This record gives sequence, structure tokens and C-alpha cells, in this order.
Amino acid sequence: MQAVDGVNHAGESQKSDASSENLFPRPPHCGILPPMETELSKKLGVEHAIFGFTPFPAVAAAITRAGGFGVLGAVRYTAPDELARDLDWMTKHTGGKPYGLDVVMPAKKVEGVTEADVEAMIPDGHRTYVEETLAKHGVPELAQGEASGWRITGWMEEVARNQLDVAFDYPIKLLANALGSPPADVITRAHDHGVLVAALAGSARHARHHAEAGIDVVVAQGYEAGGHTGEIASMVLVPEVVDAVHPLPVLAAGGIGSGEQVAAGLALGAQGAWLGSIWLTTEEADLHSRALTAKLLAAGSGDTVRSRALTGKPARQLRTEWTDAWDDPSGPGTLPMPLQGLLVAEAVSRIQKYEVAPLLGTPVGQIVGRMTSERSVQAIFDDLTRGFERAVERLGRIAGRSDRS
Amino acid sequence: MQAVDGVNHAGESQKSDASSENLFPRPPHCGILPPMETELSKKLGVEHAIFGFTPFPAVAAAITRAGGFGVLGAVRYTAPDELARDLDWMTKHTGGKPYGLDVVMPAKKVEGVTEADVEAMIPDGHRTYVEETLAKHGVPELAQGEASGWRITGWMEEVARNQLDVAFDYPIKLLANALGSPPADVITRAHDHGVLVAALAGSARHARHHAEAGIDVVVAQGYEAGGHTGEIASMVLVPEVVDAVHPLPVLAAGGIGSGEQVAAGLALGAQGAWLGSIWLTTEEADLHSRALTAKLLAAGSGDTVRSRALTGKPARQLRTEWTDAWDDPSGPGTLPMPLQGLLVAEAVSRIQKYEVAPLLGTPVGQIVGRMTSERSVQAIFDDLTRGFERAVERLGRIAGRSDRS
Repeated sequence: MQAVDGVNHAGESQKSDASSENLFPRPPHCGILPPMETELSKKLGVEHAIFGFTPFPAVAAAITRAGGFGVLGAVRYTAPDELARDLDWMTKHTGGKPYGLDVVMPAKKVEGVTEADVEAMIPDGHRTYVEETLAKHGVPELAQGEASGWRITGWMEEVARNQLDVAFDYPIKLLANALGSPPADVITRAHDHGVLVAALAGSARHARHHAEAGIDVVVAQGYEAGGHTGEIASMVLVPEVVDAVHPLPVLAAGGIGSGEQVAAGLALGAQGAWLGSIWLTTEEADLHSRALTAKLLAAGSGDTVRSRALTGKPARQLRTEWTDAWDDPSGPGTLPMPLQGLLVAEAVSRIQKYEVAPLLGTPVGQIVGRMTSERSVQAIFDDLTRGFERAVERLGRIAGRSDRS
Repeated sequence: MQAVDGVNHAGESQKSDASSENLFPRPPHCGILPPMETELSKKLGVEHAIFGFTPFPAVAAAITRAGGFGVLGAVRYTAPDELARDLDWMTKHTGGKPYGLDVVMPAKKVEGVTEADVEAMIPDGHRTYVEETLAKHGVPELAQGEASGWRITGWMEEVARNQLDVAFDYPIKLLANALGSPPADVITRAHDHGVLVAALAGSARHARHHAEAGIDVVVAQGYEAGGHTGEIASMVLVPEVVDAVHPLPVLAAGGIGSGEQVAAGLALGAQGAWLGSIWLTTEEADLHSRALTAKLLAAGSGDTVRSRALTGKPARQLRTEWTDAWDDPSGPGTLPMPLQGLLVAEAVSRIQKYEVAPLLGTPVGQIVGRMTSERSVQAIFDDLTRGFERAVERLGRIAGRSDRS
């Protein structure tokens, strides 16, 4: 099985799980903990209302196996056959339990524009700034003929549509879209396949647009989240979105990495928690860079920044000398999406390949401060369900309710 | 009773409450709701672990009467006798129930520096920019000899110490400090009077400093809060601070204005919730400006900004053309605390007096989006306790616990 950058495959990390019979060494939670059950979790047939977003099939499958809902991020897949291969693997390694797919499909469609057209829109001055910044840190070039492994082209509608052509052949239960509502025909197609459609929202206004577009689930993603975020923090955003789209179910995203935080998200009215960052340093994840894993494990909650450096839209990520260079008022500044992503794609590949520490970063939320050791998905999941239980018990005591006996 | 700017007095708003016998028209919650009880709430002798910070004695007293813990902000009191008069009033109107005081005492002491010395440090260019910005909006001057009503001098240690000389004569149960830990002798003095000391923290590091300084309670104030804030959102900050200062009690602040949000804060490990913004539009509050109240009621969660415009340190407030002027890269920028506060004091008075809408603002958190009507403190308090109950019930159901019957 050929490795794809940023994706960890069965053959590499799941060697002991060669047959699906061996996938479930013990029933999750051994029956000790009750499920975390909401209307949405029941609808999706999932034991715990914990949704895990990850670019790694091995992580997504492990989340689903643990009793959560694994959501595979598709943005890094350029070739449809690579996505097909990984969805094959996911399906084999989730034993019939539900999982989903996350695509990045822009709400605004630009007709007939190719990647080459978009590349041509990038000013020379910005290309020079990329090279100067890399040169300042002595970042080597890629080898002659070596392709840039790191590309985010999945947000171009053409690419996302190719992904969907593949995805609907697999038993996905949820299709999430990271940028705006998906086009109407995609929503219809998903519904025809019995697939729920989710969309991320950073404000109540966005969430209302999604609801009007006919989506089924809103992921309210707060300021503290990794990746693309708005400025409203989860504590305020989640109940605003819950109110705005009632009775649609809402997932709380942003700042969640413990069971207590899951409980907080649910207390705010969400029907589940959506966690992304926390899986980046799991044993099943494969960032292809020990230096990056080490940076994530060392980073505190104050070591991220909301920057346009990576995609052209504000996305929370590790603060690095790379983000500083793009956020520097004396630099050329960033380009709009999708130009910025194309502009920096090869540079990011070079930084990652040669592990140039001061420039090395990744999208991650403020919860990075809690990511201090590499652990299995199952261990983190057990912490989440136990922490949730503890929080609910404690709240019950504070409210003067008798403990369950 | 002479009115002090920004402070609402008994004689103005509590006319029907002339005698303390009439202050408790009905027992709070009529015995329907159980208390919201934590170790800290028991220690302070308060029914519900809801702490309300406010510059208005009438609001603080109403919070305490409702079964919460009212904390009066002292920063606007320049004259000790004004503070004494309002603490007299508070004591009479809380019927023996506990309340606290919030001062702003900088951690760093500057020996022998007077207000005049500090005034002299302000560059002329900044004074010119103030006048130009006011002129652009046609803001009239104050009348001849009219004093600037809006001054924030309480953060000068001398002023804060005068406040403390007054405060310890009253039965305050908690002394909170908004900027760093109070000096060691103040902590000792508070403890000698049986007064707990709280300090606000925007990061786990700040919180650890407070704990080492010997304070008793940490208020973990998230990014979404009104007033001085850091960059870490409550969802991430609260559990970090809880872990950092264990076993000291932590209050969750920032983004809290509903009972569901109180539940979320407590789920994160806090022993209570600390609410400030939500009281600004209560019937008992007196902003001395209908235009400002109207702006607050109309503002959404996205209409605030974390700006240095008011004090020189980042403080969340309504975004206005005044904050825009100071955050404008082509302007002179802000001065460090306490210079900025002194620089803008008279200007803010003029803007407030003449209610110049585009410039009119106030510190407030992202929860401002939930402040859509003027209500009594008791009505808000009832919402908080009922919403908390609802959230705890719902979490119990999600966790598979049977409802209280």
C-alpha cells in the first residue's frame, strides 16, 4: 500500500488488526459507562455523541470503533482513487459502525476556472516573498521532479465533486462541509443516499444560512478551534447557534479535548461534541514529522494564532515564524482563498519534509495545551466518556440531586 | 443623595424599598429550585454559586438579595467618602447576605508617582489625536469648570489603597482584584478581616502566580469576557486554571449570561460562575445614557472588539468609531496603562454626556448578543437558576441517568 502524505494506513499502523475479527479486543467501556445519547447520536446509530474529525483513516476508524463517530477529512485527497482506497479501508475497519466524510466545498462557485487559471492570479511579489522567507531559514528545495506532497486543492469545487462521486459509493452516514453550505444538488444527492449533511458555522448568521439551505446538522465552531474559525468563542457561539437553527441539531466544536469540555458543550445545548485537534497526537495519527509532533506536545494554549497564512481565510494554527512572516505588517500580506493555499503549497511541503522547526506548523486549536503525550484513540476516548460522567455527577451534586446509586 | 456618574443609588431606583423590611417581597425561587451549591458558595454563605460583578450598588445588592453574590466594582470611585456612602447603602440593602468588592490594583508598584506625573508622560501628538477625533464627530466641550465625570483612577495604587481603608470597615466577604495579585500586605489585611481574596487570570501562568501570592479564589476570565481579557477562550481556560491552582476554587468568567452557560462553566470544573456584562442592561443598572443602553440592546455577539483604546491594556468593549480610531494602523496607536486611561478620560466623558452614538461604547463581553431587553436582576437571576436546572437535567438524560422524580 503506497503511502499518501498525511494519511496513515492500515498496513503501517494497524498491523495487528489484519482481520476484522481482531478489531474489537474488548467491548468499549466494558459496559461500565452508560452511553452519551442524544437524538442525533440515536439517528446516526452511534453509542456516544462524540464526533472526531481527522485527516487520518486509522484515527477516524478508531474513533468509530470506540463508540464515537469518526469523520475523515477529505481535503488532502487530490486523486479520487486514493480516497476510494482509504474509504475501502475505513469500511473494512469499522465493522459496520457509522462514519462520515468532511469535504471543503466553497459556497461560491466560480464557473470554468481551472487550477492553472488560479495559479496565474498569484502576484510575483508574493512568490518572491515565499522564496525569501524559505531562504532566510535555509529550507532546501525539493528534489528534481519531486512533487509537492502537501496540497490543499480539495476546496476547489471540481475536486470536491470528484470526491463526492467516490464517497457516495461507500456507507458514509454524514457529509460535512467546512466552508459554507454545500450546493443544493449535493444536499439532495446526499439525502437520496440517506446521508445527513452537516456544515460548519462560526456565527448564528452562517448557521441560519445553512438551515435555509436544507442541511441537517450545524457544527458550531468557536474561536478557540483549530482550522477555519470566526471570532465568537464556543461559550457564546454554541447556544446562539442552537437558538438560531432550532430544532436542527448542533454539534459543539472548538476547545473540546476532555470529557468535562464535552459536558460543557452539551450543557450549552449541543447534541454532541466535535473534536479535531485532540487526535493529532494520537498513536494512530501520522503527521510524518516527529518534529511537528514534538512541537504539538510542547505547545501551550497560548501558542496558536488565528492567521490567514495557510489558506487565505483566518484559520487557527500553531504560531510559527511562517505565520509571523505572513502576519507581519511590513510583509506583502496574504492572498484570498484559494490563492494563498496554492501560493504556499510547495513551501509547506518543503518545510515539512526537512522539518524546519521554526517554520513548522499545522492547524490546531487552543486545546493543544492539553495534548502532552502520545496516546491511543481508545485511551483518549475512555477519558472523554469518563470525564463526561464525572462532570455530570458533579453538576448533579451542585444542583442538589442525589447521585445515581 | 448626590449622584455619582455611573452609579445608581437607592434614592433613584429603589424608591419602593425605603425600609429594609420591604426588600424581600418573596423568598427567592419560592423553594422550587434547589440551591446551586459548591464548597466556595458554602464558605461564603451564598445560596447559588453565581457571582455578579457590577459598578452599580443597586445591581450588586439585588444580586445578593436574589441569592447570588454581588460584587461591587470600585474602580470608578475616586473619593473614599463616595465609596463609603455606597457601601453603607449596600450593607443596608442586602439584609445580612454576603457581598464583595472589586478593586483594580496593579501588581507593579511605581513609588512616589502622582497622577500629575503620569499626565505629564502623555505625548502631545496623542492629545491632538483625541481632539481631532472628537472634532470629526462634532463632540461638544464640557461646560466651563465642569469636571470630567468619567475617570478611571482607581487603578492607581494610592487610590485603591484609600478604597481599601474604607472597605474593610464594611462586612465585605470577598475582595477581588482585576489586575494581577494584590500586594502581600493587602492579602494579609484581608485575611485578618476574614475576607477572601480573589484575582482575575487570563492564563494558567497568571493563575499560578496568584496562587503563589496566597490568594483564595481565581477568576478565570476567558477571551470572550468584557473588560480586560487574554486570548484563551473560557472553554480552554477554565479547566487549565482549575488544574493549575488545584485545590483553590476557580470561578468561570467570560461568555456567561444564561443558566446553560453557568452549567457549562461548572462542568469545566469551576466552583461558580462570574458574570459581569449581563447586568449592564438590567432595570437596576444606570448607564446614564439611553443611547448606550440602546446600543447594548441592539449589539450582536460580533459587535465587540478586544482593544487597548480605553485603558492601554486589551479590554473587550463595544466596537465603535472610537475604538476603530485607536486600532487604526494609520493613527498614533494607544499608550500603555495608565497613560491611555488618563489620556481619554475627558473625551469619554464628553462622548457619554452628549451621547455621540458612533463613538459611544462600554466594556462588555460577547454575551452582549443575549442582552436584548431591560429586565430586573431578579428576572435574570431566575433565568440563570432555571436554565442551570434544565441543563443539569438534560445532561443527566444524555448520560442515561434517571430524572429526579
